Amino acid sequence: MSITTFEINEPLDMHLHLRDGDMLKLVGPLTSNTFSGALIMPNLVPPVTTKEDLLAYKKRILEACDGDAFEPYMTLFFKNDYTYEFLEDIKDDIIGIKLYPAGITTNSETGVASMDVEVLRPTLESMSKLGIPLCIHGETNGFVMDREKEFMPIYESIASAFPDLKIIMEHITTKDAVELLDKYDNLHATVTLHHLLITLDDVAGGMLAPHLFCKPIAKRPEDRSALLDAALKAHPKLMFGSDSAPHPKHKKECCGCAAGVFTSPIALQVLTDLFDKYQCLDNLNAFVSLNAQKIYGKNPVKKTIKLIKKDFVVPAIYEFENENVVPMFAGETIPWSLED
Amino acid sequence: MSITTFEINEPLDMHLHLRDGDMLKLVGPLTSNTFSGALIMPNLVPPVTTKEDLLAYKKRILEACDGDAFEPYMTLFFKNDYTYEFLEDIKDDIIGIKLYPAGITTNSETGVASMDVEVLRPTLESMSKLGIPLCIHGETNGFVMDREKEFMPIYESIASAFPDLKIIMEHITTKDAVELLDKYDNLHATVTLHHLLITLDDVAGGMLAPHLFCKPIAKRPEDRSALLDAALKAHPKLMFGSDSAPHPKHKKECCGCAAGVFTSPIALQVLTDLFDKYQCLDNLNAFVSLNAQKIYGKNPVKKTIKLIKKDFVVPAIYEFENENVVPMFAGETIPWSLED
Repeated sequence: MSITTFEINEPLDMHLHLRDGDMLKLVGPLTSNTFSGALIMPNLVPPVTTKEDLLAYKKRILEACDGDAFEPYMTLFFKNDYTYEFLEDIKDDIIGIKLYPAGITTNSETGVASMDVEVLRPTLESMSKLGIPLCIHGETNGFVMDREKEFMPIYESIASAFPDLKIIMEHITTKDAVELLDKYDNLHATVTLHHLLITLDDVAGGMLAPHLFCKPIAKRPEDRSALLDAALKAHPKLMFGSDSAPHPKHKKECCGCAAGVFTSPIALQVLTDLFDKYQCLDNLNAFVSLNAQKIYGKNPVKKTIKLIKKDFVVPAIYEFENENVVPMFAGETIPWSLED
Repeated sequence: MSITTFEINEPLDMHLHLRDGDMLKLVGPLTSNTFSGALIMPNLVPPVTTKEDLLAYKKRILEACDGDAFEPYMTLFFKNDYTYEFLEDIKDDIIGIKLYPAGITTNSETGVASMDVEVLRPTLESMSKLGIPLCIHGETNGFVMDREKEFMPIYESIASAFPDLKIIMEHITTKDAVELLDKYDNLHATVTLHHLLITLDDVAGGMLAPHLFCKPIAKRPEDRSALLDAALKAHPKLMFGSDSAPHPKHKKECCGCAAGVFTSPIALQVLTDLFDKYQCLDNLNAFVSLNAQKIYGKNPVKKTIKLIKKDFVVPAIYEFENENVVPMFAGETIPWSLED
């Protein structure tokens, strides 16, 4: 008998871009109405690098998500010159620190210029001592299909130099990264919904599909298979992190399309469909919540999301004031809905 | 002393899309004002499959290019059911027949469903006997980065089954295709300007660049290197074929961007710059004319194009009536110009 309802408890999105201003007001509730918590990326302009900015941003997020039982897990934008005292002071306000190689993705211009362990050592040593996890956007500036693979030795150098530092390889997209997960105790990873579903074929194999263009770019079929296998079996070191990254429509459908796929409002429905299709629904709660709870040691706000096997037509666009964003599967029908 | 002027004699574009209607009127003269001749692709809607359509299309092209010393080399859209008599009758009106696997690129829906040599044998046998060259869009429907590589065995099967058939691998994009060129006497190839310049990085490595999106998609750095090496030394089996493929701006800068790069009006200037940079200008006339003359046995209209090393600002857009098209390098400055 086929399953027609399913419950997800305390869903967590461990990699999320909420932006700011009207875009935050637009997309914030589209996460907080279904998720218990989300790890919030700090790549605003300017990036979140002070306690004052961090707490003010958290406040704006909570205001945007007003009324929902939802906790934003805040992150700081990695800098080489954070002092031990600064990190000690901010420790309880953050879930981790996000490291971006400079210029590697949206609003990462002020990221680190060198991934040399010795250059990064002072901050990483403090983080390791204080038990602050390190989230990494792991791409080199090499050829687009090789950027994550080329970053593997950097993950290895940091993981072995700081065995007590909890490292999260963010939004992994390759077979190589899945394999690396088992090689170091302190390496963990997030994976997006879209990287479980698409390859470069979907972005550039037919017509060019700007709404599926993201960084890291979707890779080869064998990469997607490895990611999907790990997710479906709820590999204990792998967490769901949507990397839902809203850009207004005019910045996606234009001459120099920005990178990012917006999946927040459909993530749980599509994940349920995916795990259902592969008869792995028993593992979905681990993938979308329990693994993250264990890895980060969090006890999220109680929230049960009930899904029913009923067609849902994904809105063509979400709008608020002067902002708008086109979701993945815009205008398409997906087979699972949130209970009304 | 650096070279400041250069002459190209009888430039030929051995792979060109001129479309029809107002688009033809817009782009036709942008080729005929600099090229002596061009091999015209037959993928109109419906495709060019009869003598009547072919001659009518040729007439429309000549009208659009009125006043220029220019010869359109016409091609027929490959079909499995062309009779020997039909081909014998049309032989002198065409330079070759273009084969598209069904659905592989713009307006190729009625292409061949099978690339099995036995299925293609009747038409290929007639072509071989009549000395009609076969131009092939060589891609499978596999993963976008593998499509050309996967087609290599098909080129090999046709080349070995029909040793007297002149075969042109159109718009090659891979190291594999360059290597195959030397393996069979009857294999030749065209290469575009853009595939000498860009890789997938330029299309999807930074922002998404719809105006550089084409089929076959630009490949890896080592592929571009192999193509460039072969072009710069004017490999005798390699010809310039721009694959200049105009689409109106709104079909490029949109949600499902069409495939094709429009290079006709800047091709000779940029090729001169490229060959100049690598100090290979001595080989440019072979690459852009003499090789094609030998391979196809053509004696083109006399025309000398004089280029001067002087900045040229590429127009942001070309327009005519309701049609428009954005060229490669739109709005950018390139260091060589056509003499006024």
